[in-house]
Amino acid sequence: MRIDILTLFPDMVDSALSESIIGRGRQAGLIDVRCHNIRDYSPDKRRRTDDYPYGGGQGMIMQCEPLARCLDDVTQGERVHTILLSPAGAVFDQKKARELLSRERFILICGHYEGVDQRFIDACVDEEISIGDFVLTGGELAAMVITDAVCRMVPGVLAEQASFEDESHFSGVLEYPQYTRPEVWRDRGVPAVLLSGHHENIERWRRAQALHRTKERRPDLFARLSLTPKEKKLLALLEQGLEEFPE
Amino acid sequence: MRIDILTLFPDMVDSALSESIIGRGRQAGLIDVRCHNIRDYSPDKRRRTDDYPYGGGQGMIMQCEPLARCLDDVTQGERVHTILLSPAGAVFDQKKARELLSRERFILICGHYEGVDQRFIDACVDEEISIGDFVLTGGELAAMVITDAVCRMVPGVLAEQASFEDESHFSGVLEYPQYTRPEVWRDRGVPAVLLSGHHENIERWRRAQALHRTKERRPDLFARLSLTPKEKKLLALLEQGLEEFPE
Repeated sequence: MRIDILTLFPDMVDSALSESIIGRGRQAGLIDVRCHNIRDYSPDKRRRTDDYPYGGGQGMIMQCEPLARCLDDVTQGERVHTILLSPAGAVFDQKKARELLSRERFILICGHYEGVDQRFIDACVDEEISIGDFVLTGGELAAMVITDAVCRMVPGVLAEQASFEDESHFSGVLEYPQYTRPEVWRDRGVPAVLLSGHHENIERWRRAQALHRTKERRPDLFARLSLTPKEKKLLALLEQGLEEFPE
Repeated sequence: MRIDILTLFPDMVDSALSESIIGRGRQAGLIDVRCHNIRDYSPDKRRRTDDYPYGGGQGMIMQCEPLARCLDDVTQGERVHTILLSPAGAVFDQKKARELLSRERFILICGHYEGVDQRFIDACVDEEISIGDFVLTGGELAAMVITDAVCRMVPGVLAEQASFEDESHFSGVLEYPQYTRPEVWRDRGVPAVLLSGHHENIERWRRAQALHRTKERRPDLFARLSLTPKEKKLLALLEQGLEEFPE
């Protein structure tokens, strides 16, 4: 997997993607993430990359030429799927992360200021993506989020490959509550079923908790689920106050 | 505005939030962002902060005690609104960013591994927030996103205070296309209306473009708008192929 990130802040992006799991994946050669400074491609002596908007209005707009020259240098004439991070893009989700994972290579361009000249978008961008309905100072954090979400699924990056497959947002169900040592912490215990060693009861308890949590917190996700008769029964039992679910 | 971030990767978070607009806001003393290493509060000799989940399953769970000790040290007994970044949280949006902006201070805790012991959440966390329906390697990028979205609205952080108030996601409408110099780039021109100097025509063109784009790209946002009769007319004219909108 190769990801090229075009940005005005390459050091910030590169250093944040050099730590933790993604950093180790890069060091192990499993993922190739390269950051490029758009400013290096400015034809201007003072390395300007922005100018005032035509038609007036607040803020500055990123110019076409530095972006296009940087992109040309990165692609070397090859067709590479090119994504602009933009608040006007389609909203990123796990489905999109899996779609990007299936590509060998893609490019992320970090928008900044009040936006990017539309002609560059029309000429060079395949897709605009937003990470959510909020406004950031630039596309850098969005590019890091996408890189992280995709790269963690590259085989070998996570210690246990299976560990992303039963996670929330893979199945459209939020994760069940988790507990770890010690057994009692500041007078709070662990649900007895988790200490029972009875694998099937634990599975049923977790499934009921996950469904209940999704229903309470994310009715939008819950509405898209089609529960089995067994799941409906588990959920009803939990909502009646049952704390364990023997067969 | 003071934000404390509790994380296993304080250097990564701190350095990414030291550049660009947020970095300048911190240097100017407008925002006080402090990163704390959860690992420093482990009671364990080897500074462990995680352990296996009760009931079995993949991955590791963050333990209560290091988190609680770190939080106690940061709050010094004061009640401070405490947020856990978690895929099971409510989805972050601009409304939530404005709500957080109205607080003098809040705390962001970066979840990691397969999750955080539920007893710590029950005892110490006021709110769980997710930045979207995708899975990240940890809460760090989510904490940076929230910090960025909130801090850019702190008065003085952006050069022009007005510049966030007419942005997309403030009004529920995506931004109109933007253009800047040169007038012709690789044979592509700028829409004539933007060069006309006729302020009211430009405003109408931009409004029509913004509405059309929202309708095409984000029908979910568009459905929540209540258009004025004038806006409905502008949109209809644009959809009939009109490129300028004289009164």
